[in-house]
Amino acid sequence: MSPHDTGHGAVASTTAPPLAVGLVGAGRMGAFHARTLAQRLPGVRLAAVADPTPGTARALADDLGCPTALTDIDRLLADPGIDAVVIASPARTHADLVVAAARAGTPVYCEKPMALTLADADRAIGAAREAGVQLQVGFNRRFDAGFRAARDRIDAGAVGTPQILRSLTRDPRLADPARIPPWTIFLETLIHDFDTLRFLNPGAEPVEVSAMADALVRPDFRDRGLLDTAVVTIRFDNGALATAEASFQAVYGYDVRGEVFGSGGMVTMGDARRTHLTSYGPDGIRADCVTYDQDLFHDAYVAELRDFTDSVRAGRAAAVGGADARAALAVALAAVRSVTTARPVRLDELEGP
Amino acid sequence: MSPHDTGHGAVASTTAPPLAVGLVGAGRMGAFHARTLAQRLPGVRLAAVADPTPGTARALADDLGCPTALTDIDRLLADPGIDAVVIASPARTHADLVVAAARAGTPVYCEKPMALTLADADRAIGAAREAGVQLQVGFNRRFDAGFRAARDRIDAGAVGTPQILRSLTRDPRLADPARIPPWTIFLETLIHDFDTLRFLNPGAEPVEVSAMADALVRPDFRDRGLLDTAVVTIRFDNGALATAEASFQAVYGYDVRGEVFGSGGMVTMGDARRTHLTSYGPDGIRADCVTYDQDLFHDAYVAELRDFTDSVRAGRAAAVGGADARAALAVALAAVRSVTTARPVRLDELEGP
Amino acid sequence: MSPHDTGHGAVASTTAPPLAVGLVGAGRMGAFHARTLAQRLPGVRLAAVADPTPGTARALADDLGCPTALTDIDRLLADPGIDAVVIASPARTHADLVVAAARAGTPVYCEKPMALTLADADRAIGAAREAGVQLQVGFNRRFDAGFRAARDRIDAGAVGTPQILRSLTRDPRLADPARIPPWTIFLETLIHDFDTLRFLNPGAEPVEVSAMADALVRPDFRDRGLLDTAVVTIRFDNGALATAEASFQAVYGYDVRGEVFGSGGMVTMGDARRTHLTSYGPDGIRADCVTYDQDLFHDAYVAELRDFTDSVRAGRAAAVGGADARAALAVALAAVRSVTTARPVRLDELEGP
Amino acid sequence: MSPHDTGHGAVASTTAPPLAVGLVGAGRMGAFHARTLAQRLPGVRLAAVADPTPGTARALADDLGCPTALTDIDRLLADPGIDAVVIASPARTHADLVVAAARAGTPVYCEKPMALTLADADRAIGAAREAGVQLQVGFNRRFDAGFRAARDRIDAGAVGTPQILRSLTRDPRLADPARIPPWTIFLETLIHDFDTLRFLNPGAEPVEVSAMADALVRPDFRDRGLLDTAVVTIRFDNGALATAEASFQAVYGYDVRGEVFGSGGMVTMGDARRTHLTSYGPDGIRADCVTYDQDLFHDAYVAELRDFTDSVRAGRAAAVGGADARAALAVALAAVRSVTTARPVRLDELEGP
Repeated sequence: MSPHDTGHGAVASTTAPPLAVGLVGAGRMGAFHARTLAQRLPGVRLAAVADPTPGTARALADDLGCPTALTDIDRLLADPGIDAVVIASPARTHADLVVAAARAGTPVYCEKPMALTLADADRAIGAAREAGVQLQVGFNRRFDAGFRAARDRIDAGAVGTPQILRSLTRDPRLADPARIPPWTIFLETLIHDFDTLRFLNPGAEPVEVSAMADALVRPDFRDRGLLDTAVVTIRFDNGALATAEASFQAVYGYDVRGEVFGSGGMVTMGDARRTHLTSYGPDGIRADCVTYDQDLFHDAYVAELRDFTDSVRAGRAAAVGGADARAALAVALAAVRSVTTARPVRLDELEGP
Repeated sequence: MSPHDTGHGAVASTTAPPLAVGLVGAGRMGAFHARTLAQRLPGVRLAAVADPTPGTARALADDLGCPTALTDIDRLLADPGIDAVVIASPARTHADLVVAAARAGTPVYCEKPMALTLADADRAIGAAREAGVQLQVGFNRRFDAGFRAARDRIDAGAVGTPQILRSLTRDPRLADPARIPPWTIFLETLIHDFDTLRFLNPGAEPVEVSAMADALVRPDFRDRGLLDTAVVTIRFDNGALATAEASFQAVYGYDVRGEVFGSGGMVTMGDARRTHLTSYGPDGIRADCVTYDQDLFHDAYVAELRDFTDSVRAGRAAAVGGADARAALAVALAAVRSVTTARPVRLDELEGP
Repeated sequence: MSPHDTGHGAVASTTAPPLAVGLVGAGRMGAFHARTLAQRLPGVRLAAVADPTPGTARALADDLGCPTALTDIDRLLADPGIDAVVIASPARTHADLVVAAARAGTPVYCEKPMALTLADADRAIGAAREAGVQLQVGFNRRFDAGFRAARDRIDAGAVGTPQILRSLTRDPRLADPARIPPWTIFLETLIHDFDTLRFLNPGAEPVEVSAMADALVRPDFRDRGLLDTAVVTIRFDNGALATAEASFQAVYGYDVRGEVFGSGGMVTMGDARRTHLTSYGPDGIRADCVTYDQDLFHDAYVAELRDFTDSVRAGRAAAVGGADARAALAVALAAVRSVTTARPVRLDELEGP
Repeated sequence: MSPHDTGHGAVASTTAPPLAVGLVGAGRMGAFHARTLAQRLPGVRLAAVADPTPGTARALADDLGCPTALTDIDRLLADPGIDAVVIASPARTHADLVVAAARAGTPVYCEKPMALTLADADRAIGAAREAGVQLQVGFNRRFDAGFRAARDRIDAGAVGTPQILRSLTRDPRLADPARIPPWTIFLETLIHDFDTLRFLNPGAEPVEVSAMADALVRPDFRDRGLLDTAVVTIRFDNGALATAEASFQAVYGYDVRGEVFGSGGMVTMGDARRTHLTSYGPDGIRADCVTYDQDLFHDAYVAELRDFTDSVRAGRAAAVGGADARAALAVALAAVRSVTTARPVRLDELEGP
C-alpha cells in the first residue's frame, strides 16, 4: 500500500457529518496537528482550538477557518459538539487532560509523554477504560512508512529473533536550554526511542535499564541539571540488548534512525537526506539533510491522526494506546533512576509494593 | 521549505468561497486528481466530474462527495459555477478540450501531452492567450522536491554550464499493448523526459534529435507499430548533449531518474527505494522498490494542482504552460520522425512554412 | 571469491623461475604496470623497461630495481630472456609493436586501443595467431569486481534479455588539450565503454552507431578538431539499445558507471565514493570522490596483468583478446564516421568489400 | 593519497637486502600475514614460519616459497637472520612471545590482544622498551582508508568535540562455540572496537564502562560461560559517551561500522556491500554483502604490516603500540568486570595499589 494514501482505505461515509475534533495546545506541534485536522483528513474538521495563552488559539483558528477559539480548555472539553480531542499542550498537563477528556466521554489523542509518573499514567489509562473511550498516544514513528515496513519484516520473520537493537533521536537545535525541564531528554525525547524499541521487538518487554547522560551541548547548564546527551542500554525479556541515544543538537539536521539485528538478519531505518538529489562538485559528493521533524515525519504525523479519527468513527481500539505510553514511560523513569544512582535499574523496581 | 508543505504559503483566504474545479476524465490519473481537488487542497473543492463512459464520473463523484457527475463534457465546460478545469481525458482529446475551456473563459490544467501536433498545440496556446486564462500542463516532475532542488542548484551555478544530461522513465508494467497507440512512448512517456531536460538546462532549447526505438518488451506487437523501448539523443543550442530513454516495463518498479553533468559538477535525481528501510539477510542487502507513479510522485501531483489553483486565485501565469508543452511535443515529434527516417532530425524541420 | 585475492588461485610453482616481463612505454600507465610487474604479482618479475624518451626507462627501472632499461624498443622485443611483453606506449604505436612482439614469439599484453584502424587490428590479430602467442588487450573494467559481478548476474539470467544499456567515462581533468589527437574521445576513452557494453550484453554484437560530440570543455580547441564531450547510441543485434558517454573533465573526480536494464531486472555499477566515510555537517551530507583511475581501478589493473601472466604460464588463451579489441574499435570508428557524416552508421559499412 | 598505494611512499632502497620477517602462528590470520610478507610488500621477505602444530608451518612455507618452517617457536625467535617477527598465534601466548622477541632484540608485530591481563601487557611493553625495539599491535582498522579518513576529518575539526560514538563488530558465523574461551567477545572481538573508539576520540581516554552480554546465538552454551552478544557503554574523560557492540553471528556477512557524532557534525564509517554492483528485480533492490574480514580489511591488513616493516627499516616508533594495546585491554577487562558485577566499572578500579 502506498505510504501516501491520504484518504484511501479509511474513507468516511460521504454523507455522514465530519468528525468534529478539538485541539488543546496551539504551540508548534499543536499547529501542525491543527492543520492536519482542518485540511488533510477527509471527513474530519477542526472544530475548536483551546490554549490558555491569550491570542494563540485565536490566531491558529483564524488561519485555518476554525470557528471556535478558547483560552479555557475546560470549555472545550465540556463542549458536547466535540467528537474527539487532540492534546498537544505541555507534557506536565497531559495526564490531567486525558482524565478530563475521558470523563467527558470524549476519545482522546495525547501527545507523548502521556504522563510523567506511572501513577499518572495509570490514572489516565483507568479513566479512558472506565469511560470506554479511545486513548491514543503520539508515538508517530509507528506510523512512518519505513518503521512500519521494518515491523512488517520483523513480523514476517525476516530478522529472526531480535538480539541487538538501536534507536536514536538527534534534534537539530537546542534553542533555549533555560526552558527545558531537567529530565526532558528521557521523558520527552528518548521516550520515542523506548517506544520504537518495543515496537521493533514485538512481544518482548524491557527488564533492565542502564543509562549515562551529560550536558555536552550546553555544559553551562549542567549545574541546573539539564542533560542534553544520553545513551541508554536496555535488556529485554527475550534477551535482546538495545541502545537508545539522544542529543539535543545535531548541527546537520534532524536525525532519527533504527536498527534491529537478529538471528535471521538485520533491518535498518532512517535516512537523513532531504530529497533524492545528490550533488557532485570539486568538494566531493553532497546531499541536503532533513532539518525538521515536521518534514521527516510529515506523513507519519498525518497518518497517526487519520488512524485515530478512523478508530473513533469505527468504534475500534486505538492502535497505540495507554499501555504503550506507560511502558515507554517506565523505561524513561528507570533511565532517570539509573543516572541518579549510577547503576543499572530493573523495571520492576519502579512498581510499588 | 518543506517538500511537504501542503497548505503552507499558498493559503487561501479562509473567508473566500473555495475554488470550484471541474474534472474531465475519470480514469486512473483523473481519479487521483479528483481526490486531490476534493481532499488535499485547502480552499479548493471538486465541483463536478465529467466522463463520457457511463457511470464512471458518477462513481468517482460519489466516492468523493462531489455533487455533480456528468457524461457530457460540454456541460461541465459550460457551467458558469466552475472556476477552473482539470483535463485528464485521453491525449487525443486534450487540445480540443483546452480550446473549449479557454473559449468558455475557464482556466485550464491539462495532462500531458497537451496536443499531438504542433498545429493543435498552437491552437490551444492561442485560445488560452486570447481568453486570457491560465493554461498549465501536467509536467509533474517540475514539482517534485528532488527535481526542483536540482533546478535550484543549477540556477545557483553549482553545475556550471550543462554539458551532458540524462532523463529516463521506466514504467512498471505494460498491461495491454493492444490499447496503446504506436507512438505513445514518445508522445506520452518520453514527453516527460523531454520537458525535464529543458527544465534542467535552463534557457537552452533543443536543436537536433536522434532516436532509436524498438518493440523489445512485446516483440509480438512490433508489426502493429508498437514501440516499447526507446533511446533519444538531443543536442541543445548551448551545446549540451542529452539522452532520454524509456521502457514500458521495468519488472522492479517505477523508475524515474535524472542527471545533469556540467562544467562545474553534477547533480543526480531519482531513487527507486520505496522507503528508508534496508534489510540484510543471507541473500545480501535488500530494499523495496517504488511501484507506482502515484507513490513516487504523490507529493508532486498534489503540488502541481496546488500551484495551478493558486495561480488561478492569484491571477498569475501558470508555472509551466503551453509553450513548455509545445517545446516538449516538438522533441517528441522529431524523435518520431528520426525513427521513421533513420536519421537525426533538426527541430526546425518540423516548423512548416 | 574475494575481489582482492592477490596471489590466490593462480599460484606460480614456487620452484619455477619467475616470468620475465618486459615493459614498453614508461609513461603514467606504464609506470603503474611496471610496479605491478615488479611488486604485486608473485612469480613475475619486471625484467626490462624500454622507452624512447631518454632517461625515462632508466628512472622507472631504477625505482623498481629492474636490471634493464632501454631506449631501443626493438632490443627489448628481441631479448630472448623476455617471456612476455606489456605495451603501454602511445596508441599509434600499438599495432606495430604487437606485430613485432608476436613475430618474436612473445606473448603480448597491449593497452587499449590495440589499433587505430581495422586493418591494423587485423594485422595484429593475424600476427599473434600465426605466432601462436597470447594477445591480451587492456580492457581493465572486465577485471573490476563490480563489473565482473554484473556480468555474472547477467550470465545467471538475473537481468533477462538486455534491452537498454549505459556505460560512461568521465575523466577528472583535461590537462593539455593541445596534445590530444582529435578522435581520442572515441578511440581511447569511449573504447572502454564500447567494450563494456559488449561485455555486459553477452553474445550480442553492435550493428548500428549514432554519435553526437562537441568541444564543450575547451571550445577554444573546437577548430583544431578536438572533441571532449560525446554521446553515442548503439543498436545491438539482439535489439538492445545502448548509450555510451564521455567527458574529458569531471571536476568532481573520475566517474565510471554502467547500467544494464533488461526483461528481468537491472544491474547498476559504479560508485564515485573514495571510501566508506560519510560526513554530516551544517552544509549537509558529504563524501569524497575518487580522483584517479589508478585508485578506482587499482585492483582491476593488477588483476588483468595477473590474468595475462597466468595465461602465459598456463599456455591458455587470453581472457580478453584481439577480437574484442577489434570489435570495440569498430564501434569507435563508426562513431567517428557518424559524427563526420551526421547520420547513423551501420557497422557493416566499415568492412571492406 | 591513494588507499591502495602498495609500495608507494615507503620505498625500500632497491639495493638493500629485503627485510627478513619471521611469522609465528600459521593459522587463518597467520596465513594471510604470511602471504602479505611473501608477496605483497616490496623490500620484505618471509624468512621463516613457526607453528607448534606438526606440518602446519611447513605447508604454509612451501606454499609461499619460504625457506624455513619450524615447530619450535624459540628457534625462530633465536634466529639472528630474522629482522622482525609477526605474532599470529593464540591470544594466550602473545605476551610471552612479545617478551621473548623483545629480549632477542627483534622488533615485533603482535596480533590483538597483545595480552590478557594488565600485568602481562605491562611486561610486554616493558620488555620492548628495555630492548628498544618496535612493538606494534594488530589494530588493523586504524589502517583502513575509511576509518583513517574519519580520523583525519576529526583531526581537522569537522566533527567538533566528539559527544556520542559507536563502533560495532559482527562476525559472520559462529563456527565452533566449544573452542571459544568465555570472555572472547570482550578480549578478542570488542577490543577492536575499544581501540577504534579511542582512535576516533583523539586525546580522550575511557573512564567508566558498563556492559551487558548474553548467549543469544548459542543459548545452549550459556552454561559454559560463552557470551556471544554484547553491548558496552563507555564514558570518556572528555564527556563523550560511546557504545560498542558485538555479535558472533551475523547471517548476512561481516559487519563493521563506526560513527562519531559531535558538536560540529558527524562521520560514519562502514559499508557492508561487497562491490559497487546493485541489482534490481521483482523482489526489489539487492546488493551482496562482504563475508570475510580478509575481504573487507584486505588493504588494511596489508597496510599495517607495511607500516610495521617500514618503521623497522626506518628505525621509528610503531604507529600503534603497546600503550594502545593496554588501553583497549583495560576497557575489555572493565567490561568483563561490569558483566560479572552487574554495575558500571571505573577504569581506575583495575589499576592495583
